[in-house]
Amino acid sequence: MKDVIIVLFNDFETLDVFGPVEILGSFKEHFKLEYYSLEGGNILSSQNVSIATKKLSEINSKDYILFVPGGMGTRELVNDVKLINKLTELAKNAKYIITVCTGSSLFCKTGLLDGKRATSNKKAFAWTKSLAPNVSWVQKARWVKDGNIYTSSGVSAGIDMTLGFISDLLGYEIAKQKSIDIEYEWKEDSSYDPFSEVYKA
Amino acid sequence: MKDVIIVLFNDFETLDVFGPVEILGSFKEHFKLEYYSLEGGNILSSQNVSIATKKLSEINSKDYILFVPGGMGTRELVNDVKLINKLTELAKNAKYIITVCTGSSLFCKTGLLDGKRATSNKKAFAWTKSLAPNVSWVQKARWVKDGNIYTSSGVSAGIDMTLGFISDLLGYEIAKQKSIDIEYEWKEDSSYDPFSEVYKA
Repeated sequence: MKDVIIVLFNDFETLDVFGPVEILGSFKEHFKLEYYSLEGGNILSSQNVSIATKKLSEINSKDYILFVPGGMGTRELVNDVKLINKLTELAKNAKYIITVCTGSSLFCKTGLLDGKRATSNKKAFAWTKSLAPNVSWVQKARWVKDGNIYTSSGVSAGIDMTLGFISDLLGYEIAKQKSIDIEYEWKEDSSYDPFSEVYKA
Repeated sequence: MKDVIIVLFNDFETLDVFGPVEILGSFKEHFKLEYYSLEGGNILSSQNVSIATKKLSEINSKDYILFVPGGMGTRELVNDVKLINKLTELAKNAKYIITVCTGSSLFCKTGLLDGKRATSNKKAFAWTKSLAPNVSWVQKARWVKDGNIYTSSGVSAGIDMTLGFISDLLGYEIAKQKSIDIEYEWKEDSSYDPFSEVYKA
């Protein structure tokens, strides 16, 4: 059983979180999902979904996955030293790190993606690259796995990546069956990315 | 500006709600989303997402869309006369009714789908048909529109239907652009349904 520490902030993108939560949250024997934010309290998504959170400083898990979504909130938070320092500390002890969309744009500020391969939202790709030029940013990718770090493209790619993560961790058949259960056509190929053509960086 | 009355119950399916919310909630100039349940208070999805709700009896909107998700919670709720009566009353004054997955299995108990075309989750299709034999259940459909009632297939089809609803209401270009913004490959054809073959009723 692993804890999934979901890091929320105001103006997170709703589906960045609840696409992956749909998958991870249904494997209750494997994952325990918990919502956190820097200061705790209710956090509002860009689509006005309100989620109660605990403070990141209250985490006492030893066996956890760190999950960082994207959204417009990241645009300012890339300059929030307190949050970046906390993410750095948490990431160093995480079993896995998963970011969706511009979650990697926020997470790259920890420096822990330097020298690694990663992707992000394609619409904001030029901005993301400017934040951390020492990351090997992969423009055409639905998601990228480098070591224990998974990063995905924009919003809905987070669902495909999470199924890919389940496939790596629990096996392909289990991931595939989950996609069928939710009547979702899983893009299983992590390099499939039509939106890299739509938004040329 | 229309209110979107999102009817929650324990064991609703997370993505049934937050897929459509990702779309509807980003058109803030058109829709105001509110979460309700029969008794109010915090409601838990099957994936343990907790959402604060108001009581359905507190609704005083005159211009609203009624939104009913699916999930395992519907299995018992199809016998909840108090909820079915409330849904019937609300549906009669709704501008539009939108159901996702087994949301239609719950909603059909109002009798308001009788003589109309509708679809539902394919895995639970035989059960759904048994609940309301006077509905023209469409087995192969991603979503079905009949008058002001939209019903969709399982979980992720709700996203495609909601984009279809936006297309009908605000125009195709706006719906298409939204799908590109969230890097989602919209299945625009409401009859596209590979899962009707996977789960033969």
